[in-house]
Formats: sequence, structure tokens, C-alpha cells
Amino acid sequence: MSYIEAVELVGIAAFAVCGAMPAIDKGADVFGVLFLAVVTALGGGVIRDMMLGYLPPRMFTSYTYILVALITSFIVFLDAYKRRESYEHHKAKLDSIANVFDALGLAVFTVSGVNMSIEQCGMEKPLLLVLLGMTTGVGGGMLRDVLTNTMPAVLRKRIYAIASMSGALLYYVMLRLELNEVLSTLAAMGLIFALRILATVYKWNLPKVKL
Amino acid sequence: MSYIEAVELVGIAAFAVCGAMPAIDKGADVFGVLFLAVVTALGGGVIRDMMLGYLPPRMFTSYTYILVALITSFIVFLDAYKRRESYEHHKAKLDSIANVFDALGLAVFTVSGVNMSIEQCGMEKPLLLVLLGMTTGVGGGMLRDVLTNTMPAVLRKRIYAIASMSGALLYYVMLRLELNEVLSTLAAMGLIFALRILATVYKWNLPKVKL
Amino acid sequence: MSYIEAVELVGIAAFAVCGAMPAIDKGADVFGVLFLAVVTALGGGVIRDMMLGYLPPRMFTSYTYILVALITSFIVFLDAYKRRESYEHHKAKLDSIANVFDALGLAVFTVSGVNMSIEQCGMEKPLLLVLLGMTTGVGGGMLRDVLTNTMPAVLRKRIYAIASMSGALLYYVMLRLELNEVLSTLAAMGLIFALRILATVYKWNLPKVKL
Repeated sequence: MSYIEAVELVGIAAFAVCGAMPAIDKGADVFGVLFLAVVTALGGGVIRDMMLGYLPPRMFTSYTYILVALITSFIVFLDAYKRRESYEHHKAKLDSIANVFDALGLAVFTVSGVNMSIEQCGMEKPLLLVLLGMTTGVGGGMLRDVLTNTMPAVLRKRIYAIASMSGALLYYVMLRLELNEVLSTLAAMGLIFALRILATVYKWNLPKVKL
Repeated sequence: MSYIEAVELVGIAAFAVCGAMPAIDKGADVFGVLFLAVVTALGGGVIRDMMLGYLPPRMFTSYTYILVALITSFIVFLDAYKRRESYEHHKAKLDSIANVFDALGLAVFTVSGVNMSIEQCGMEKPLLLVLLGMTTGVGGGMLRDVLTNTMPAVLRKRIYAIASMSGALLYYVMLRLELNEVLSTLAAMGLIFALRILATVYKWNLPKVKL
Repeated sequence: MSYIEAVELVGIAAFAVCGAMPAIDKGADVFGVLFLAVVTALGGGVIRDMMLGYLPPRMFTSYTYILVALITSFIVFLDAYKRRESYEHHKAKLDSIANVFDALGLAVFTVSGVNMSIEQCGMEKPLLLVLLGMTTGVGGGMLRDVLTNTMPAVLRKRIYAIASMSGALLYYVMLRLELNEVLSTLAAMGLIFALRILATVYKWNLPKVKL
């Protein structure tokens, strides 16, 4: 398992949480919850590999990836099931926990997306790398939102795609300057995570036509 | 036409029915009905081929496949059109017929999905084969549900993905044991079909957080 | 830039308009509007390239494509923002403008889809070429509709897929007869555009079960 694949496991656990919770909200049974969690956690990587022509997608061949997604989401289900009497009561708190995991998953998958796109296509096409990084970052959540008939986070949440692209660009520039890979990974992930959390906490608003 | 391609025609006819009926329900015109039927019937195979890197997808090059989907869904449309006065009246009966065709399509495409994944990737990665079999089985219906803004069957229906994966695994194990291919196909399809019908008839319930 | 890529820029601008407007309607902020416009404008080409195995998709490597989509949709946003007081008032007029751009984008991408599929697969499989042309034409709008939880245009709008396929077939036949490429492009695009506009203006109705 490469360095970046190990980092991805954190993103998979984080996105599994973000996939399990809306499935529970929509009234899916335990297998529906696990299914949506796996799609959310592995979806971004599958889309990235389909776009890179790395076929079949690597997510489908790794027991580790899928087991991490299954175990994480099963724990989320069990916890919710235990406190199902008071589930609605904790809703607001659960949503803000999910938002933190979502920021973490976005950060991890954006960076791993750029990293694996470089592996396949080299360093010469920064536009491609940034776009594929963002696609990897937002892809899993987008599949989840489409499957649950929800307006996708990328259209709904404050500076979602922008946070992802900023981090992808920072990661690319740092690698280009031949800075340390671990440092670059941490800096880019930190930027994405911080932008998303700050945007949520301070309710950063961007212009809209309809308020 | 190979043995498994001939079997697939049954699945295409079954899924064409399952695509035509919700399009009629949503008020689509005759071409919308045919379009959704074709997407439902061919979608799973297209997604499978895209994931296997078998490009362009084989569904796009076969007049037989597309004609079977078109003719089947046109018959469904004609029949519904003839009895449009009493359409709502027969709704419950029609839904349970659609459910049987859906179980049949799921059974056929899961097995053909495993079969064609073996052709491309060999027998050494059972996880990949089972996941691609399930993706092929649920893919067409998932596209249909997403296009008609419906919660996907795989999240909504009793043991949908589980039935598909059980059959995929049984098929793999039987082939691994070098049992007869036709027997393995029939056994795996029978298992998927039976699990889905039994789950519907006996309303098997799995734990949910929200009841 | 090849001849057909230059033509595609017109389609990208047209579809960027058709992506920006529903995003504004759904209350997305300025970046959500740009994001949905880019997905709508580039989505059909990305799906086509994924189906052709031309990976990574060419849309991701061209600054021109993405800049045209961004600039066009930013102008649409600015214009809507300036008249946001009277936005609802102009709704009907804006919708009919969007419909014209939509017909234009459908025409351009259908033809470019056939053209690039010929480049990859040759002239020997007309069914494949027509289906991939239609997929390219309807793909971007379909992604947009799915992301905004709207019934896709292809199911909702009068003779949408049929117009696209008719143009794709005309283009193929004209090339087959070795007629001039520019003439064939214009004739096919003209047919698709005319069919869509006429169908809208004269409210051509096709049989439905539920009226």
C-alpha cells in the first residue's frame, strides 16, 4: 500500500460516515445504509479511475477499502439504531459532525485525486490535474446526493468546489517547487479543510440572484 | 452471439418493461417511454463495459439488443395506451408484474456481468467480479430511478443488492468448482430471482433506524 | 484546433447559458452557477470520451473550452444579478431564450459527437455513431437535470432525442455519400435546430398514456 493509499483510508472512513447518515435519514434499511456509504466512500475514486482510463477501477479490487467503508458505516448505523428514540433530537449535532467528516473526505480525495492523476498523466497539464482532483473530491458525495434526490453539496454548500480546487492547485504548485510530498499533502489538505470549516462557521456568503 | 449474450436478451426484455412503466407513470410521451426503456435495459451493460475498459460499450454496437428493448417497450406502451381509461385502476397489478420482471432482469444482468468481467479480468479477483456483477445488475435500474427522480430500488427495495451479490458469489464459486456453466447460470439466476420474490411476498424486513 | 472543435465552442457557450439559468433558479451562489454551467457545457463531451475510451477526456485538457463556459455563464450571472428585482417578471422570456440556446447546443454536440466517434471507430458502425452522437448531444443537459433534481429534458421535451438522432443519421449519410463536410455539418445541425424549434413553437404532441 503506497503512502497516498494509506491517507485515502482516512477519507474513506470519513465519507462512509457522510454516506451512512443521509441513508438513515431517508429511511433506508441496514443494507441500504451500507450500500450508500460504500458508494459515497468509493465513488470519487471510481469516477477518477474511469476518467483516467485506469480500468477496472482500483477501488473494486481492494478488500481494505471496502471493509473500512463497511465497518465505519455499520458502526454509524448501530449507534443511530441504539438511540433511535432520540435520533431526531440529536439531528442538528449529527449534521455538524457530518459536516466535519465531509470536509475531511473532500480534503483527502482531492489530494489523492491529483496524486493519482499525476501518476497516470505526468505533471505537464495542471488544468487536468486540478479538475480531476476536484472531480475525485466531490464525486462520491455527488453520487450520494443524486441517489438520494438531494441538491448536490457542490451546488448547495458554501465554497465547496472552490475549496477543493484551491487545495488541488496548492498541492500541484508545492510538488512543482519540489517541496516535500508529506508536507505538500498536509498543507493542501489543511487548506481545503480550513476553508470548508471557516465557510460553515462564519457562514461566508457569495452573491446570489435569489436570496 | 455467445451463450451469455442470448441469455442477456431475456434480461433486456425484462428491464425494458421496468423502464417503460415508470416513464408512462411520469407522463412521458411515446418516445420518452422508449428512451427510458432503452436506458434501463442497456444501462447496466454500458456501465459494466465502461468499468471494464471494453470501449465503446458492446450494447451500442448490437442492433439485436436495442431492437429487443424498443419492441418490448413499444408493446408495453401500446397496451397501456389501449387501456388508458382504466390505467390507474390496474396500477397495483401492473406494479407487481413489473416487480417480477425486475427480479428477472436483476438475475440475468448480475450473472452476465460476472461472466463478462471474467472474460476481461480472469478468475483471480472474486471481489471485483462480485462487485461488477452487482453493478451490472443494479446499474440500469439505478440510471432509470435517477432520471425519473425516484429513490433508487437498491436503497428502497428489500434485499436488492444483497440478492444480486449472493447470486454473483454463487456463480463464481460454481465456476471455480468447474461445475457446468449452464447449471451455474441457472442456479445463480434462480437464487437471485427467488430471494427477490420471497422478500417481496413475505415482506422481509431488515432493521431501520426510522420506521 | 480542428474545424469541429471550433464549432464546438458555439455549443459550449450555448449549453453554458442553459446550465447557468437553472442554477440561478435553484438559488445557487455565483460559484454554483459557474459549476453547473461547466458541467452542462462539458458533460456531453466527457461522457462521449469516456464511452470512446479517449481518456482522460479532452474537455479536461483545454483551457479554451473551460474559459468559454466560465465567461459565458459569468455574463449570464451578472446580467441576472443586475436585474434581480425584476427576475421573476422576465422568467417566461428567459425560458424561451434558453430553449433556443438549448436547441443550438443539442445540434452542435450531436454532430461533434458523431464526428469524434468516426475518428475513433471509423464509418462501419452507423448504429454506434448515431447513439454516441445522441449521447453527446443530450449528455450535458442530462447531467444538469439530474444534479438539479429535474426530470431530464430528454423525457420531458418534445422530440428531443429524436431530433438529435435524425441529425446524427443525416450527418452520417451525407458523409457516407462523400458530400462536403462543412455542408454536412450545417445541414445536420440545421435539421436538429429546426426540429426542436418547430416542435416547441407548434407544440407538436406525441401520444401519451396520461394526458
